[in-house]
Formats: sequence, structure tokens, C-alpha cells
Amino acid sequence: METIIKRNKSIKPKAPILVVGLPGIGNVGKLVAEHLKREFKAVRFATLYSPHFPHQVVMLKNGCIRLVNNRFYLIKSKKANGSDIVLLTGDVQAVSPEGQYEVNSRIVDFFKNELKGTFIYTIGGYSIGEANGIVKSPRVFGNVTRKEVMKQFSGTNVVFKESRGLIWGSAGLIMAFAKMNKMDGICLMGETSFLDMDASAAKAVILTLSKKLQLDVDTTNLDKIITKTAKAIREIEKQQGIAPINQLQPSIDEKPGERPSYIR
Amino acid sequence: METIIKRNKSIKPKAPILVVGLPGIGNVGKLVAEHLKREFKAVRFATLYSPHFPHQVVMLKNGCIRLVNNRFYLIKSKKANGSDIVLLTGDVQAVSPEGQYEVNSRIVDFFKNELKGTFIYTIGGYSIGEANGIVKSPRVFGNVTRKEVMKQFSGTNVVFKESRGLIWGSAGLIMAFAKMNKMDGICLMGETSFLDMDASAAKAVILTLSKKLQLDVDTTNLDKIITKTAKAIREIEKQQGIAPINQLQPSIDEKPGERPSYIR
Amino acid sequence: METIIKRNKSIKPKAPILVVGLPGIGNVGKLVAEHLKREFKAVRFATLYSPHFPHQVVMLKNGCIRLVNNRFYLIKSKKANGSDIVLLTGDVQAVSPEGQYEVNSRIVDFFKNELKGTFIYTIGGYSIGEANGIVKSPRVFGNVTRKEVMKQFSGTNVVFKESRGLIWGSAGLIMAFAKMNKMDGICLMGETSFLDMDASAAKAVILTLSKKLQLDVDTTNLDKIITKTAKAIREIEKQQGIAPINQLQPSIDEKPGERPSYIR
Amino acid sequence: METIIKRNKSIKPKAPILVVGLPGIGNVGKLVAEHLKREFKAVRFATLYSPHFPHQVVMLKNGCIRLVNNRFYLIKSKKANGSDIVLLTGDVQAVSPEGQYEVNSRIVDFFKNELKGTFIYTIGGYSIGEANGIVKSPRVFGNVTRKEVMKQFSGTNVVFKESRGLIWGSAGLIMAFAKMNKMDGICLMGETSFLDMDASAAKAVILTLSKKLQLDVDTTNLDKIITKTAKAIREIEKQQGIAPINQLQPSIDEKPGERPSYIR
Repeated sequence: METIIKRNKSIKPKAPILVVGLPGIGNVGKLVAEHLKREFKAVRFATLYSPHFPHQVVMLKNGCIRLVNNRFYLIKSKKANGSDIVLLTGDVQAVSPEGQYEVNSRIVDFFKNELKGTFIYTIGGYSIGEANGIVKSPRVFGNVTRKEVMKQFSGTNVVFKESRGLIWGSAGLIMAFAKMNKMDGICLMGETSFLDMDASAAKAVILTLSKKLQLDVDTTNLDKIITKTAKAIREIEKQQGIAPINQLQPSIDEKPGERPSYIR
Repeated sequence: METIIKRNKSIKPKAPILVVGLPGIGNVGKLVAEHLKREFKAVRFATLYSPHFPHQVVMLKNGCIRLVNNRFYLIKSKKANGSDIVLLTGDVQAVSPEGQYEVNSRIVDFFKNELKGTFIYTIGGYSIGEANGIVKSPRVFGNVTRKEVMKQFSGTNVVFKESRGLIWGSAGLIMAFAKMNKMDGICLMGETSFLDMDASAAKAVILTLSKKLQLDVDTTNLDKIITKTAKAIREIEKQQGIAPINQLQPSIDEKPGERPSYIR
Repeated sequence: METIIKRNKSIKPKAPILVVGLPGIGNVGKLVAEHLKREFKAVRFATLYSPHFPHQVVMLKNGCIRLVNNRFYLIKSKKANGSDIVLLTGDVQAVSPEGQYEVNSRIVDFFKNELKGTFIYTIGGYSIGEANGIVKSPRVFGNVTRKEVMKQFSGTNVVFKESRGLIWGSAGLIMAFAKMNKMDGICLMGETSFLDMDASAAKAVILTLSKKLQLDVDTTNLDKIITKTAKAIREIEKQQGIAPINQLQPSIDEKPGERPSYIR
Repeated sequence: METIIKRNKSIKPKAPILVVGLPGIGNVGKLVAEHLKREFKAVRFATLYSPHFPHQVVMLKNGCIRLVNNRFYLIKSKKANGSDIVLLTGDVQAVSPEGQYEVNSRIVDFFKNELKGTFIYTIGGYSIGEANGIVKSPRVFGNVTRKEVMKQFSGTNVVFKESRGLIWGSAGLIMAFAKMNKMDGICLMGETSFLDMDASAAKAVILTLSKKLQLDVDTTNLDKIITKTAKAIREIEKQQGIAPINQLQPSIDEKPGERPSYIR
């Protein structure tokens, strides 16, 4: 089996902007993408499967199964000449470097050449280390494909030139392949202290993103999740002695704080 | 070397149903498949070898060696227009995600296109965690390729919609590739608490399976294994300090509880 | 770079028998091959390089370097119609399952189709576990490609049908590929208790092998190595706290017991 | 994505000599290459990207990102018929054996066939083990592609025939592929005791290299780095409890001693 993108619906998005939110540090990207997906009743139109993803299927609440994947959703613009938003989210990221290069270059190729996309946002968490405690007012850091892109974000709260170190996985590689393909993009990172599920960092990014994209986002639900998350953290800490090392981030479809059960 | 399926005999099974039981949690799948194989004197007709399997050969009791593999067996139906059963069991599963995707998509392709198969059962263990102690009356959980399949199991003891989390390896991926190829199937999982060799969970699945497939299975032998297993568990616990991490599940051909010896 | 076998000399061995001794448990195989190589002043005629070997070069005593590899040597038969012996030894084995399948199938293909070989010996160590202490009189276990081969070893001290478990790596896979290619062979395993360098087990195998192949082997040097090894073991035990995990077996060209230094 | 070398500028170096300094033990190679790059204002003319590198992008001080890579720089010779120097440095090395063989054989092929190169220096650290304390006057060890090359270094302080063990990664494999391609080369190794950033070992190699290549190198800056490094070591030791295992060597573009932050 090769990496494939299956089109569920033959949709032609209008001058689309891609927003990528996949599992990672603090699950910031995934939380942002899932929230936008629900808020705007985004419609799935394509699914990416890859042999570089873990060899897992998800047991669904309806009794069926589903191969782990990455999914493309469409949010139609309400304006006459506005850009549609394409959301990319999913269960997993590729497990090997070779897989990461393959999957992420395929994503950029698909967005640019098949969807005729124009700009990419990738969302991640910017870790300040667990030792530094919970972040009260998380900042939103930004790194761009080329200097000119920063100007588009003047007047926003995005902090440039202060982030240091490495971006792992899709949030970074999709930026790199965008740059190689002469497409502009920004990686937005919510400040986090390594929590499994940092709704606070996600909220900060959503506020930035909705202002920039002129989206009318209700963040009430997100506030609830923050409260739930705080409670869940203590439970997770109790369970940490028995948690499997290197386990997948729990899917947002499962209740956070619950211990996953495995079968093979 | 590529993944290959060698036909030992040119058998044409009649509208076959595939039952997959490979090493995994509690060895439930392997126990089920091995039991059915012996009970019905199933005949091997094909062998799958893959470079994604571990680089091992098995030392046989007869002084010979055999490359680790997966094996296809045939159980002829005794009814005029009944379905033959194809059993798939083996020593190992592929060790990498890429290998798992390759081997399992090959199995589904072979079963559908060469054997003209109609339905797939995969068997696994559903772990409730070692901390929860030994399961007295193991339940049988089910997950299906599409909702309609559940109806075929009304009136059985299969528990639907209560299993959560991830199915790793062949038990899950073969379901996923069946679904992609428009074939129906079910993953049956015996409730287990992570034992190396859970005959009790295997018995529960065999009872479910034999009722559904109208097989006349003698479970006496299986009861003996349960007693032996219980004894062996204490011995295994003693040895756990010296057991190699990530070792292969011991083959059912070896006596359970014995410490394997390695050579390379 | 692909796996390649470079011919240094265009030698045509006479009905050759292959003896494979590579690093592994107790380094039994490597010790046997190196000893025969020196004893009979074997001539190197081919070298196998592979991207599945570790990414290492060896610093040679003469100030040069050499890429890690596997090497083919020739021992000419002294009899008019005797079989020449081809020795295969080397620094390493492939590091991944996929690499093991590729390298070992290439070795069998090269021996059968290019050298027109007739029979294969692979040499290994049969571990009885460190807890069982040092083996005083190591037995030699044998596993063969098909039952008929055992008859050729009646009257020798080779113990058949008592070895259990798995053979990892070249010693096993070369047997498997020989069998697949309708070639006969035997895996000879010296009983060992997991020492890094078990000359005692190697000696046992050499005695068996030289009797069977009617080779006039002087084992004096081997006796010296046993004494040296015993001394070295205590030193190794002292150093074990600082030894790198998963390090390569020290090359026989280095002094055993010395701590290797690394550079990259 | 495949391993690619992108030419930024269409430069034709004159009978070039390659100096390879990549991350590794003590970061000796990278320190040497970075120092020469700054000292001689070397101009980048080609960049190597590979799916065998880690799946990371670097967050740059200017707010942009850059995919991790290896970079080729040119130092023009000031003499009429002198050799130009091509520097190869970068963020990372390939993570798998297969990747190392691919990337390093590509580097040698590019240098020999596209740049018409004549001789290769690879730079590394020769570890004497942390237990042995800090090396006061680091020696420079050498290993060459063939014996004749040693003569070219008579009269220098390069120590031949005393280095033992294995050279991992590019410093070794580039030598091996040079030898396979009938090109001469030397691996120069500064004696080090496993520090993350051993400027003292780097200085020793730079002095040797500049004498041999008749380069007028100012080592003042390097002396400062030694002082800074000594200070930083203590801080690093404090932080070691929280340092991620297997983290990339910090880029020389970041301030040494600072704790990197990660995001994905």
C-alpha cells in the first residue's frame, strides 16, 4: 500500500487557505482543528491513508472500525469573494522521518496542485517545559516561510522572532514544503507546558486565527474544555505510572483522562 | 526478497470465510486458530513469507528448521452448499508499520481475488489491564466493517459498541482493508487481562464462533489448557525478571511456560 | 547504494561447501570462521557491502580504514576430487529484518548460482542462559534443511532434535533460503552461556567440523584463546557498567577485553 | 521526496578539496567547519535535503523557518593555481544506516563527478571516554583511504596507527565511498572526552588543517569559545536531568548552553 488521498466528494474549494491541526505537543493543533470543524460544521471531502502511519484501527462508538488517517474538511466562505478554508486534522502523524517527508510533501502537493491553494497555516504547541508550570496567559508564536509574510500579521498578537529550536513533524515540514513550492505560510504555536491536552493554548491560537480570518468563533465550549482538562490532568498524573510509553495522543473523540485500552 | 504467498496445494475453497488468528494480546487469536486447525484437521494449502517478519527460523522437533511465516489452512464444509473455512495463523506479525500495511493488504487481496472469499473474522484479545486481575467470565466484543454486519450477530453473545481504543496489527488492519475492498467482516475480541496465553478468552471466542458458523467444536482440550495455563502463569511471573523485553510470543508448538532459548 | 558483492579475484571454486561464521551469540560462528581462515591461509576473493549494515568504518592498525562488510574466502581442497571450502565471515550482520532478508538471500543466491555451491554450514552459539554458569563440555547442536541431511551426520557428536526456540540472523536465514532453493545445509551450534567470546564453544564446533570435512586443524591456538578469554571475562564484567548498550560485538582483530573507542 | 542536492549558485570550484564537518562526538567536525566558514566568509552554493534526516525545521532568528539540511560552501584559493576549498556542514546526519549510506554516497558522487574534486578531509572527535576527564592538549589522530596518503602528512602532528575502533556516520562513510571511487582522503579526529561542544579538540584540528592547507586562520575567536564552553558545561550538567534523550546537537547558530525548546 502507498500513501493515498481518497476524495470522498468532488468539491472545488474557492482560493482555499489550509489550516493544519494534527496531534502533537499539547494537542494544540488538533484541538484548534477539531473546534473549528465542529463550530463551522465542516464537511469532509478527502482522506489520507499511509503505510507510514501506525498500524492501528480505531474502535468507533457505533460498533464499526476506521483505519487511522488524516482528513480534509471544507468550510465555505460566507463572503462573495472570500477564501474557503480547508481543515486538515487526523488521528496520527507518520512514525518515521521517511514517512513524515513523504506524507507532508504529498499534503502540500495535493493542496497546491489539486485544490489550487494559496496560503497555509500550521498549528502547534510551543513548549516551555513542564518544570515551568502551567502557562496562565499563553502567547502565540509565529514562524513564516519568508520575511514578507510577517507583515500580513502586523496588528495581531502573534509574537515573531522569539521562538527558538526545532519544529517537529507536520507543523514544520508542511511549512518547509510550502516554501520549496513557492507558497506562503505561517506556523502558529500556542505557548504550553507539555500538557497532553492544552485547551488554553488552543484557545489563544483560535482567537488569533479567527480574528485574522474574520471567523465568528464561539469560544464558550472551549472554556468548558479548559475546566474539564484541568480536572483530567490530576487523574492523568495518577495514572502516569501505568501509561504506556510512546502511546498515541488520545483521540479527541475519546473522553480525555480515560485510560485507553489496547488490543491487537 | 518480497512478501510472497506460496501455494502448497491448488485447492479451490467454496465461497470461503476467512478466520484470522495470529499472535497478539493474550494470544487469543492464535489459540482460537490453532484449536480449530487441530479439531478439524485443517489442511495447509498456502504459506506467506515476508521480509517484514522477524529474521528468525524456528528449530523444529524433527531436527529441521522453518522460516517464520503465516499459514493458510482449509476446513471443508460438511454441508452441500455451506461455506468452506480458511484459517490464517502463524508464528509472527510484521514488525514495522510499513510491513503491517503491506502484509495485511496482501492477505485481503489474496483472500478476495484468488480465493473468491466472502467474509472475514479476525480474532484478538481485548485487554482490560493487568491491574484488574484475571477475568472470570470473559465477554466477547465485536467491531464490524459496516453497521449492517452487526444484524447478522443479533442473538449471539457478541457485545457491540462497548469496546473503545485501538486495534493494533492484523486483527485491525485486515478489517480495514476488507472495508476498503467492499468486503464484510468482524473482529471478535475475547476479554483478557494481558496474560501471555489466555485460553479462557480463547474458549469464549471459540464458543461464539462455533455457534455462529455451526461448527461442532469439542472444547475439552481447551479446558485442559486453561488449567495448565493457570499453573504456568505463576512460573512465568517468577521468570519475568529475566525475560527478554519485546520477545516474540512463544509459539503454540512450544510448551507454554517454558523459557525459550535463543541463538543467532 | 545497494547490497553488492564485489569479486576481488576471479576464482572458480570446485564443488564448494560454504561455511558461514558471523558475529552472534558467544561469537561462536565468527571464532570458528576466523580460526579456519588463519589455519588454512584462506584467500579472500569477494566482499559483500550493504546499506543494511551499520554505518561504520573500522580503523585499521595500518592507519587505513575499511567499510564494515562480509567477506568470502577460499580454502582449496588438497584432494583430487574434494570439495573446496568457501568461508564467509565479517564484522557485522544487517541491522533490520528487511536487511537480513535481503543480505542473506543474496548470499545464498551468490553461492548457488555464481559459485555453483553444493552444501552450506552455518555456525552459531546455542545459549543456555547466563544464569546457568559456564558450560564445561559444550555440546554441538544441529538443525538441518530436511530430514535426510541428518543421516550424513550419523557417527558424529552432533546432537539433533534437542534444540528448541529460534535462530536469529544469518545462521538461520541462510538455512531457510538454502531450503527454499533446494540446497542442503546444517546449522551447527556450540553450547554457550552468553559470553561475548566463547572460544570453548567454538572449539567444540571446529572439532566436529574438521572431523566431518576431514580437515587437519591444529587447535592449540584455540586453547590459548580459551585461557585468554576466561581472564578477559572478569575484566569485561568490571567494565559492564560503562559499556554502551547494543554495541557491536568487538571485532576479532581487536584485543578482546579492551574497551572500544568510538568516533563519529 | 528523494535525497536532493540543490545548487543555489552555478559555481565551478578549482580542483577543489572537500572539508566535511558535521554534528558528532564533541561537535568537533561542526565547530571546525563553522569556524572556517566564518573566518573565510565562505559562500553557500548548494544544499542537500534528505528524507533520511530528522523530520524537523529550524526556527530562525529572523522569524522564518528552514528545513534541516547539509550545506556546501566555497572558499576560493588566493593562489594562482591553488585548490579551492569546499566546506560541507549542516544541522544533522541521516538517522538510519540506509540513510547514511545513501546520503554519504551522494556527497562523494557530487564532489567527484559534479565538482571534479581531488581530495577529502572529514573531521570528527576521537573519544577517550568521559571517565578520563577533560583532555588538556588534545592530539589529532588520522586515518586514511590508503597507505600512500600518510606520507603527505609527514612533518605534521597527525598521529597515525594509534586510533582503534569504529568511525560512525559521515566522517567514516565518506572516507569509505572516496576509497571505493579511487579518491584519496583523510579523517582527522580531535581527541575529546565526549563533551557536547569541544572547542579545544576543534582548535587542535584547525591548527593542523590550516598548516597543511596553508590557510591563515585566526584562532582568537576559538579561544573565546573554549572559555565560554567551559562555563556552559557546568550549566549543561545542571540541566542534564531534564534534557531530552537523543536530542539533536544544538546548532552552532544557537547560543551554546541554552536549553532548546521544541514544538511539533
